[in-house]
Amino acid sequence: MRVAVMTAPGEVHVEDRPDPRIERPTDAVIRLSATCICGSDLWPYRGIEALDGPRPMGHEYVGVVEEVGSEVRNVRPGQFVVGSFFASDNTCEICRAGYQTHCVHRESAAPGGAQAQYARITLADGTLVPTPELPPQDLIPGLLAASDVLGTGWFAAVAAQAGPGRTVAVVGDGAVGLLGVLAARQLGAERIIAMSRHESRQKLALEFGATDIVTERGGEGVARIKDLTNGLGAHSVIEAVGTQESMMQAIRSARAGGHVGYVGVAHDVALPGDQLFFSGVHLHGGPAPVRRFLPELVGLITDRTIDPGKVFDLTLPLDRAADGYRAMDNRDAIKVLLRP
Amino acid sequence: MRVAVMTAPGEVHVEDRPDPRIERPTDAVIRLSATCICGSDLWPYRGIEALDGPRPMGHEYVGVVEEVGSEVRNVRPGQFVVGSFFASDNTCEICRAGYQTHCVHRESAAPGGAQAQYARITLADGTLVPTPELPPQDLIPGLLAASDVLGTGWFAAVAAQAGPGRTVAVVGDGAVGLLGVLAARQLGAERIIAMSRHESRQKLALEFGATDIVTERGGEGVARIKDLTNGLGAHSVIEAVGTQESMMQAIRSARAGGHVGYVGVAHDVALPGDQLFFSGVHLHGGPAPVRRFLPELVGLITDRTIDPGKVFDLTLPLDRAADGYRAMDNRDAIKVLLRP
Repeated sequence: MRVAVMTAPGEVHVEDRPDPRIERPTDAVIRLSATCICGSDLWPYRGIEALDGPRPMGHEYVGVVEEVGSEVRNVRPGQFVVGSFFASDNTCEICRAGYQTHCVHRESAAPGGAQAQYARITLADGTLVPTPELPPQDLIPGLLAASDVLGTGWFAAVAAQAGPGRTVAVVGDGAVGLLGVLAARQLGAERIIAMSRHESRQKLALEFGATDIVTERGGEGVARIKDLTNGLGAHSVIEAVGTQESMMQAIRSARAGGHVGYVGVAHDVALPGDQLFFSGVHLHGGPAPVRRFLPELVGLITDRTIDPGKVFDLTLPLDRAADGYRAMDNRDAIKVLLRP
Repeated sequence: MRVAVMTAPGEVHVEDRPDPRIERPTDAVIRLSATCICGSDLWPYRGIEALDGPRPMGHEYVGVVEEVGSEVRNVRPGQFVVGSFFASDNTCEICRAGYQTHCVHRESAAPGGAQAQYARITLADGTLVPTPELPPQDLIPGLLAASDVLGTGWFAAVAAQAGPGRTVAVVGDGAVGLLGVLAARQLGAERIIAMSRHESRQKLALEFGATDIVTERGGEGVARIKDLTNGLGAHSVIEAVGTQESMMQAIRSARAGGHVGYVGVAHDVALPGDQLFFSGVHLHGGPAPVRRFLPELVGLITDRTIDPGKVFDLTLPLDRAADGYRAMDNRDAIKVLLRP
């Protein structure tokens, strides 16, 4: 099969590797209908996260089950499935509390990569959610988004307690931030302030339900959020970047007693204890337990209540994965869908 | 009047200063029935927090109202009152959300000090809570504790979501940590693990409702908490110290999806973003909005449901405040009550 492999920062090649096979009785093998490039894939691409050898890339996937291991009960060949980037048993105490990304048995869901034609999915019973029927082609991008970016933006909005009567600020205009806007809207937020200085992303934020756009960043961005909230700050802030600046911008944009949901993978971040202490905010985040939300999200997509697939503004054949990485690295594309 | 003044690290003198008077129409002047020394008073005492000149000390107080300003409506001379260390209007949007320590008008409640015979209390209407009648002498220590340490421990327990079915770990065996144990018990926690290596403090923790004692600290302490919780960590962790070690011990002692309530005033703390991210915990804390809880706490104390006054294990006349500071600095006393 064909699979995208990162060999060094900035170097992605699509190469032939053996098709994956069932290795453990809890595995499934799926034929991918679509896959994509994640913002987090850019960390090693930019050399910020170390690579220890060539890495088959990709952890977002939708597809049709080809084969299942002998212990798999909840999915069967021929079903269309969506899953999260971390495999989880979905039965342990942590999973039952809704934190499947911290499952006591968690592991990479697609250890051989998912920017590929086929993927071996681990702990298939706990990880995969089948759709009621084979979805029409036009819903596939949305279902693919549910696998990570939508689930992550949704978790951030839930962690930030976006809801009726609340003003939500969103730091980060990547796919996760934009889908955080969509989630906040679905969760009933009264006002949603997207922080973005890129016209195409502003446009999508407004389509997804943003009520205000703030183009300033850092201290000026915080001041604008305060201006818009009677000097108090937002009730809810979604942080979807993962840098020191974005984290502090998020914390400082929230009012005392407000909630910051952060899902940008933290790199070189150190939160000053005194500033955090005197902010009085609630802080919650981390790797999003997408699996918690998948059944609900799949329903909202298949009944066409939401269309998160709009975040894919560039579609390429898998063999052109390298072009996709470049487009996302340059911010020419919000998110790139790859057709296997 | 007599008031304790800190002139330099390690130097506390009780000196004569003019009696406080009403300065603003929203002020009240109270005659203190009791006052005390706070763990946070030890930061400048130990030279960790800078002093900008001689500082009248104390921010915990109970007493009888002597006089009120012309705009004060909710308290009147002769009433016995308890208040928090920050004054708040108790009417702004932040106060109404329960974050009175972040009130848009917040200021020091006792700017002239409260380790004194009299104190001027600012924003008296929002800040002071009168008791239904003059309390008997034996309840005064408990009511004094409500003014800060009990309210702070209570907030930490609420922020940590201590409650039925939850295992709560408490980092810090000072008065706040011990009263965090009491709060967790009142809030219905199933299991309460106090982390302490001091026999007298362990004893009080058990009296307040701790079910387990862990004497190890740092990584070993975390490992013991994991041992006691099926390897998962506590649902709720109360942090009541404010150092880098205690904060990391608290975060690492909580399970993914668990809640850390932190109230130790952070000094030289920098939280590593990646560790926080992958911990998956909820983090909430800061200066405790004691005012939120005061009406409930006053009720629990006056009906003798709880006796937080037990944290005072040394009582001295105000004039011996310096001995009180020394005893707390050496950890010879958990908390020192001063009789004005």
